[in-house]
Amino acid sequence: MQDEGWVRYNRRMTNKKLTHLDDLGKAQMVDVSGKAETERWAVARGEITLKPSTLRLISEGQVKKGNVLTVAQVAGIQAAKRTGDLIPLCHPLGLTHVDVDISISEELPGVLIQASAHCVGRTGVEMEALTAVAVAALTVYDMVKAVDKTARIGNIRLVEKHGGKSGDVVLEQE
Amino acid sequence: MQDEGWVRYNRRMTNKKLTHLDDLGKAQMVDVSGKAETERWAVARGEITLKPSTLRLISEGQVKKGNVLTVAQVAGIQAAKRTGDLIPLCHPLGLTHVDVDISISEELPGVLIQASAHCVGRTGVEMEALTAVAVAALTVYDMVKAVDKTARIGNIRLVEKHGGKSGDVVLEQE
Amino acid sequence: MQDEGWVRYNRRMTNKKLTHLDDLGKAQMVDVSGKAETERWAVARGEITLKPSTLRLISEGQVKKGNVLTVAQVAGIQAAKRTGDLIPLCHPLGLTHVDVDISISEELPGVLIQASAHCVGRTGVEMEALTAVAVAALTVYDMVKAVDKTARIGNIRLVEKHGGKSGDVVLEQE
Amino acid sequence: MQDEGWVRYNRRMTNKKLTHLDDLGKAQMVDVSGKAETERWAVARGEITLKPSTLRLISEGQVKKGNVLTVAQVAGIQAAKRTGDLIPLCHPLGLTHVDVDISISEELPGVLIQASAHCVGRTGVEMEALTAVAVAALTVYDMVKAVDKTARIGNIRLVEKHGGKSGDVVLEQE
Amino acid sequence: MQDEGWVRYNRRMTNKKLTHLDDLGKAQMVDVSGKAETERWAVARGEITLKPSTLRLISEGQVKKGNVLTVAQVAGIQAAKRTGDLIPLCHPLGLTHVDVDISISEELPGVLIQASAHCVGRTGVEMEALTAVAVAALTVYDMVKAVDKTARIGNIRLVEKHGGKSGDVVLEQE
Amino acid sequence: MQDEGWVRYNRRMTNKKLTHLDDLGKAQMVDVSGKAETERWAVARGEITLKPSTLRLISEGQVKKGNVLTVAQVAGIQAAKRTGDLIPLCHPLGLTHVDVDISISEELPGVLIQASAHCVGRTGVEMEALTAVAVAALTVYDMVKAVDKTARIGNIRLVEKHGGKSGDVVLEQE
Repeated sequence: MQDEGWVRYNRRMTNKKLTHLDDLGKAQMVDVSGKAETERWAVARGEITLKPSTLRLISEGQVKKGNVLTVAQVAGIQAAKRTGDLIPLCHPLGLTHVDVDISISEELPGVLIQASAHCVGRTGVEMEALTAVAVAALTVYDMVKAVDKTARIGNIRLVEKHGGKSGDVVLEQE
Repeated sequence: MQDEGWVRYNRRMTNKKLTHLDDLGKAQMVDVSGKAETERWAVARGEITLKPSTLRLISEGQVKKGNVLTVAQVAGIQAAKRTGDLIPLCHPLGLTHVDVDISISEELPGVLIQASAHCVGRTGVEMEALTAVAVAALTVYDMVKAVDKTARIGNIRLVEKHGGKSGDVVLEQE
Repeated sequence: MQDEGWVRYNRRMTNKKLTHLDDLGKAQMVDVSGKAETERWAVARGEITLKPSTLRLISEGQVKKGNVLTVAQVAGIQAAKRTGDLIPLCHPLGLTHVDVDISISEELPGVLIQASAHCVGRTGVEMEALTAVAVAALTVYDMVKAVDKTARIGNIRLVEKHGGKSGDVVLEQE
Repeated sequence: MQDEGWVRYNRRMTNKKLTHLDDLGKAQMVDVSGKAETERWAVARGEITLKPSTLRLISEGQVKKGNVLTVAQVAGIQAAKRTGDLIPLCHPLGLTHVDVDISISEELPGVLIQASAHCVGRTGVEMEALTAVAVAALTVYDMVKAVDKTARIGNIRLVEKHGGKSGDVVLEQE
Repeated sequence: MQDEGWVRYNRRMTNKKLTHLDDLGKAQMVDVSGKAETERWAVARGEITLKPSTLRLISEGQVKKGNVLTVAQVAGIQAAKRTGDLIPLCHPLGLTHVDVDISISEELPGVLIQASAHCVGRTGVEMEALTAVAVAALTVYDMVKAVDKTARIGNIRLVEKHGGKSGDVVLEQE
Repeated sequence: MQDEGWVRYNRRMTNKKLTHLDDLGKAQMVDVSGKAETERWAVARGEITLKPSTLRLISEGQVKKGNVLTVAQVAGIQAAKRTGDLIPLCHPLGLTHVDVDISISEELPGVLIQASAHCVGRTGVEMEALTAVAVAALTVYDMVKAVDKTARIGNIRLVEKHGGKSGDVVLEQE
């Protein structure tokens, strides 16, 4: 029934591959209309390096720490839900779960952040997990910046990714 | 095919139940990845108590009333769509319908608000209906606050909730 | 220098008062361009009534309580900053401070919320304080709704308002 | 199982058609809960008329042009994703693809914008395509307004629409 | 006191004019830090052409018309406040007033939209007025699209602009 | 004139320092109401490490590179404007300038990002500069993730900060 429209549309899409603008590298949102909805999840990690004295301030006051970490955790969860709004070529996704874990590392010294994101959808959720980590780290930074101007956010990377055509990608053993 | 990844993931998820942070009550977004997509809807109500003279101002000017109520209705509908952005642990949802009804009550005296929200999804829509009611009420407040500093928003509650595992919940007869 | 433009503009503005649409009560955003920037602040309060057993769940787990209240507090602060986006006829404001206090009330029984908002600006911040209270209450609701379907948000009202032409408005003694 | 709730709900919905507020034309969000999820896509076009000298400024600097057009393209894609947030009665949609093409027209003279939007959902995506065109045009306007106060955005219209109950709608031959 | 920092900063800024990326036309947000805060306002207009039968549907039902136009008016006001979020290189502005007027034109036939925006700030508000017009027009489109697939948004242009260094710009007599 | 209100308010604020919740470390937004508006600016940097082959893909296609970097630059600018929305305890700020520079580093190998933010306000803009860097880096990640699963975002730190009570802070020589 929709044949004619689809034919013309596909022809245009095919031709578009040849247009000048595309040759020039026009930014593209990947078309996932034809992909199946499957369960997908991803885990990302990152850290923020702090002065030992800053870390002590966070970890000494038990509840103060609870709050720094809780505020950052909440910020991370909310940011994951706003990924499609922040990253221009990301698809909006109906996330079914976001989890942000934040813990103190005396070794680093600093704060370790791990986020996982889940959806049942047509595209992966790496960006959602990575965005949660980045914004949680920025939130920790904001809460300590008055006492620590040398804080540094780093090592934000994908750890695992599951579901979809590319299957299981496991980049780090636990 | 994804067995290995899932096994390790599930193990981590299981172990996580035992971690210190969770024992301490880390805020959790409920994981609804495994739930079925079903039609769900909820109805919420609330009210804003006004001085009789304020209510008269609203109801006398027929179209003025139309507008106060229309602006509040639009604000409520838009807020329902933004629930996942406002309430940290709410899932983003593809709402299929939002309805906001606002009417004058000379008895109260004040304004009565009822909102319903619908989706075909993995989690309920109570928060969407309640958020629509709350923001519609705040909008009425904003529009009358110059003449009524004693306005009061109250009685925001769930009325009915349908769909999903918990089935029909009916808290008020019509 | 800009006389001619201003004259014509003012004339149009004056005439507009007479147009049909305005007679019909077209919704208006108040023009505050001519107001002085002064320090302004407002305090609002509200509450959420809960079953005693729900309240016990919140208050028993010391840290769990910390988290429920912290998540709601963060949600309230963020909502205050988004007031101009939620309430159609509110002005966007550069808030200089938002404070949200949440506490357990065994008497109610339930949770008491107080929010204050500050700015140095051309218009009051009541709506910002009220929006913070409403969204903090919705967040508490969201976190307990699985165990308490009869929770009820109420009594959201202005408590004090200072600064600007209307001066001090104090509606409740502490 | 949910019969009773549904019956009452449907009765209320039916009755609502008869209420005074609806007779008065209360704004309605269309209820799409009962529609099937199908692949849907739409194409919209629009243009911005510029002074020949403005167009020359854009087209001469090859990369400058690349950037004006790329910034506008990115703005259009992001706006499409925010359609449900901007247009009060639009449903939020999980777009699977957005494409924005912008090109120079010496004939017009000005800039031509075409946007397409795709989803697998319960309602059409015309508004998403049209919003992408409008915001891309506003972005071009913003980038040239210092040198061209007579720029004019026009001719924003639907070109094609496919999927859903209304089938293929083709309003312009390529 | 800040001399050293400023000198280095200015040197970097000066040098930047010479860098490769800028030569390639890197998109720039105009730096308005050094501009004075003055009262600024702008007026924009646009229209949406409709089938006579569509216009009749809008204008016959007095209140229905009120609502179509009120919903569009609210959407326009809210969009003006979000301009800095939609248009990548626009500054965020503390608007002091937004006004959206929408009226029926039997001549066009269609709907005429005029928006004005005000601020006391460091940069003009043309984009805010234009964005209000564009989003109000899209909202009208959305509300009539079921009955009028040939609606067309056009003629969106600046009408007047006052305040700031460029003084009065009046492009159309009333 | 406002003496009484202020006295009571200040007393409450003073007392609040002693309340239990604050002792427990309730998250605080710093009150900047009493600070002077001064020009403030900050510079932040960060990087994303890529496989040499990924970097080659970016840098070979001259315009493709232009676009990857332009899209990331636009995303960074927009994110800076949304900092107060993303980071819970940040103040909303009227930024007067945001600048994002992105360049290829064959040494790293990867992409270097520098962002500066300016405002005339009551609080610093470090978080705005850092947020721009983080979101620009996430955007680069998103655009290369199909070909490079080992990309890593790091070294996000403050470089300089000027204006306000703390004066010039210069952490890195150019």
